Amino acid sequence: MCLISALSALRKRNIAPAYNVKVIMDFQEELSSPTIADLVKKNRALLAADRLVIMDGTRHISDIPTIMFGARGIATLTLTVYGAKENLHSGQYGNYAPNPALKLAKLLAGMKDDDGRVTIPGFYDGVKITATDKKSFAEIPENMAEINAEIGIAEAEKVGESYQEAMQYPSLNIRGLQASNVGKLVTTTIPSMAIAELDLRLVPETPGSRQIGLIKNYLTQHGVTLIDSLPTDQQRAQFKTMATLKQKEGSLPFRTPMDSEIGLWVSKSTERAVGKFLKVRATGGSQPMASFIETLNVPAVSLRIPNPYNNIHAANENIKIKNYEEGLRMCIALLTQKVD
Amino acid sequence: MCLISALSALRKRNIAPAYNVKVIMDFQEELSSPTIADLVKKNRALLAADRLVIMDGTRHISDIPTIMFGARGIATLTLTVYGAKENLHSGQYGNYAPNPALKLAKLLAGMKDDDGRVTIPGFYDGVKITATDKKSFAEIPENMAEINAEIGIAEAEKVGESYQEAMQYPSLNIRGLQASNVGKLVTTTIPSMAIAELDLRLVPETPGSRQIGLIKNYLTQHGVTLIDSLPTDQQRAQFKTMATLKQKEGSLPFRTPMDSEIGLWVSKSTERAVGKFLKVRATGGSQPMASFIETLNVPAVSLRIPNPYNNIHAANENIKIKNYEEGLRMCIALLTQKVD
Repeated sequence: MCLISALSALRKRNIAPAYNVKVIMDFQEELSSPTIADLVKKNRALLAADRLVIMDGTRHISDIPTIMFGARGIATLTLTVYGAKENLHSGQYGNYAPNPALKLAKLLAGMKDDDGRVTIPGFYDGVKITATDKKSFAEIPENMAEINAEIGIAEAEKVGESYQEAMQYPSLNIRGLQASNVGKLVTTTIPSMAIAELDLRLVPETPGSRQIGLIKNYLTQHGVTLIDSLPTDQQRAQFKTMATLKQKEGSLPFRTPMDSEIGLWVSKSTERAVGKFLKVRATGGSQPMASFIETLNVPAVSLRIPNPYNNIHAANENIKIKNYEEGLRMCIALLTQKVD
Repeated sequence: MCLISALSALRKRNIAPAYNVKVIMDFQEELSSPTIADLVKKNRALLAADRLVIMDGTRHISDIPTIMFGARGIATLTLTVYGAKENLHSGQYGNYAPNPALKLAKLLAGMKDDDGRVTIPGFYDGVKITATDKKSFAEIPENMAEINAEIGIAEAEKVGESYQEAMQYPSLNIRGLQASNVGKLVTTTIPSMAIAELDLRLVPETPGSRQIGLIKNYLTQHGVTLIDSLPTDQQRAQFKTMATLKQKEGSLPFRTPMDSEIGLWVSKSTERAVGKFLKVRATGGSQPMASFIETLNVPAVSLRIPNPYNNIHAANENIKIKNYEEGLRMCIALLTQKVD
């Protein structure tokens, strides 16, 4: 709405934008944009552009206008480890039948150290954080003590030296675990299978297919026979530890250099509009820009207008009038900013 | 019914049993006998006896009449490890907020080795398997290849050298695991807590309170601060890893020597009734005899009459006529067996 209002304001004053503008409205973003990749591929010529500015997402938690130069991508995995054919009485078979929940725990435990760093060889290969990058993290007004108090932890993981730095690395997260039941549904049995749901956050140097390959290697090197579906009786007789690994690659990671042409251009216009603003190397979450960047080969940055804590994607999602007004100014400045 | 019919048959023939008989019928056994411990305590004088024979449970899988000289006991634990206050977006906090599912996996993984042996110091202390015990295991007609094929595993855990030997050791079993959700309910978040349901099978040398104490020590030695309920904000700021450990002690373990007076007496009568029979040192499951043994200080053995695979505790629970007839003979022999 800020962009449309800005275009409308310029037209009323007979001011032409400094360049041609194509507006894309993605009404399926909250559904993970299931059709956009195909649409972009089928409309390359129509969508061809020199620069892409996306206006999805909120500002940094300080509510200072934010330019986001990148976002992590995501891939998800479902790891299912198999034990005996059925859940077995833990009295009759305890100390005899292998427990897939123990095996799963051992596999997961071996993937990361006590400080949350992935120990699978090669997982971080290619990631470089420069002194300039570290300086940019230090310019973001936030501190770990406040973040820790907010989320209720005594100590953060030690992947990066700061919150911002941690977001620049690929991650491996156990997002769900299940074996048999807990609580009121618990039974005194040895589970026949154990499931871990994992998500991998990605950066441009660590593509999803590579990271998934590393995890597969890790599993096979730790004695797991990867199978495609439920184990057959023949496989059960043959292999000590069997698992299935289902994978799904989601949004691709991207990162645009802050000193690139588009980076300098958006920085200049934003400074003109609001004075102070933040430059963030990459957000930890994902953004559905990848299909544009990949297919159209166009550089991109994300301009963040709404206030943080705005109930994004939930009931009573909101924007403060101050943010809307600043957003209007940011859009007018952007539309009238000449490219050097 | 075998015992009552045996008593009735003796009465018809005017044959008096060789000793006085007290019959206890526990109609709550499938409900874990919730009131029996109190009843026994309140009726010590009424229930006082020299020997206890229990007729719960099926024969060995070979369907050979079985005398069971012991049973493992059980204690259960619920271990809940806490992370941040809420489930957190794994993009926004992945590599920053500690994941309690990972911590739980590491704690569980460290409790046992790859062969299923508990590595917590002292867990097996006091357990002794003698050459005579090993000889008794070898006399049971079963083999591991058949058991493995039946339950669908390539290889058993290595706590004991045989199935029977494995049942003579205390066990530690993960009977349930949960962190957030898996499958259709999965969300891309870092779970705020992770739960493991454990059961400990017990033998007389490894009482529940001792085993639970060892696990508590293990947890605190691995950096866990044990708390009583949900962590407060103050605790969250102070402790890196917090967990609650709920415990419940169930049936007590028991074991009666095969060469004890009651052991020799039941063996003699059973041999008289059916000729061939099996002597099993202890079953892996539990039996609700503990309150009698503990409170009345009476030695006990379990006489197994019904066929295996009889749908015990389930629909169409059954007994074969052959087993019923043999059971009748076993009871008549027992009732008329003089104590030397």
